[in-house]
Amino acid sequence: METLRRRIDVIDRRLVRLLNDRARWAIALGGIKSQRRLPIYQPAREEEVIGNVQRCNGGPLESAALRRLFERIIDESRWIERSAIDRREAPSASRTRVSGTARPDDAQD
Amino acid sequence: METLRRRIDVIDRRLVRLLNDRARWAIALGGIKSQRRLPIYQPAREEEVIGNVQRCNGGPLESAALRRLFERIIDESRWIERSAIDRREAPSASRTRVSGTARPDDAQD
Repeated sequence: METLRRRIDVIDRRLVRLLNDRARWAIALGGIKSQRRLPIYQPAREEEVIGNVQRCNGGPLESAALRRLFERIIDESRWIERSAIDRREAPSASRTRVSGTARPDDAQD
Repeated sequence: METLRRRIDVIDRRLVRLLNDRARWAIALGGIKSQRRLPIYQPAREEEVIGNVQRCNGGPLESAALRRLFERIIDESRWIERSAIDRREAPSASRTRVSGTARPDDAQD
């Protein structure tokens, strides 16, 4: 069991690198969208992403599982794109927007 | 924008391969747990997985984002481990268990 778990840990570290690579490209994309005044949320593109991954799926994960996984990944991408844009546009406001745990009384600090 | 999107698509296809590799190891692990009569859900191991990925995180994804992403990944692993065990233990029942969209009247087929 330990051997299998160490193999999963190795895969997980590679997943972290790839997910961070993806996040960096998403931030770059968010910057372009912001310059061109395009919305961050583009439902047609999100379906394209899901379709792309489902087409190349060799299993054992089912199509529906991949959809759930990539909905989460896309959701985090959208969040990080927005955070990066907010930081660029209003650096002083970045703290409350980025933390995700901002309380209404934070403004009193 | 198209160039960035094609780069994201390439990363996504690599993510699919890794996620499927991970699922295969999870199924193997589930088989061992089942033989040894161990529970599929092992909260301490799940925290170990989250800790492992958070420690190697170089950003830009935040720690909390990685936790959310890996909670989803772990959830799908647990589901596929259970499905694989159910298929081994009761092959005739596998169809309704695995599809996730089984209707009560499926049994009439």
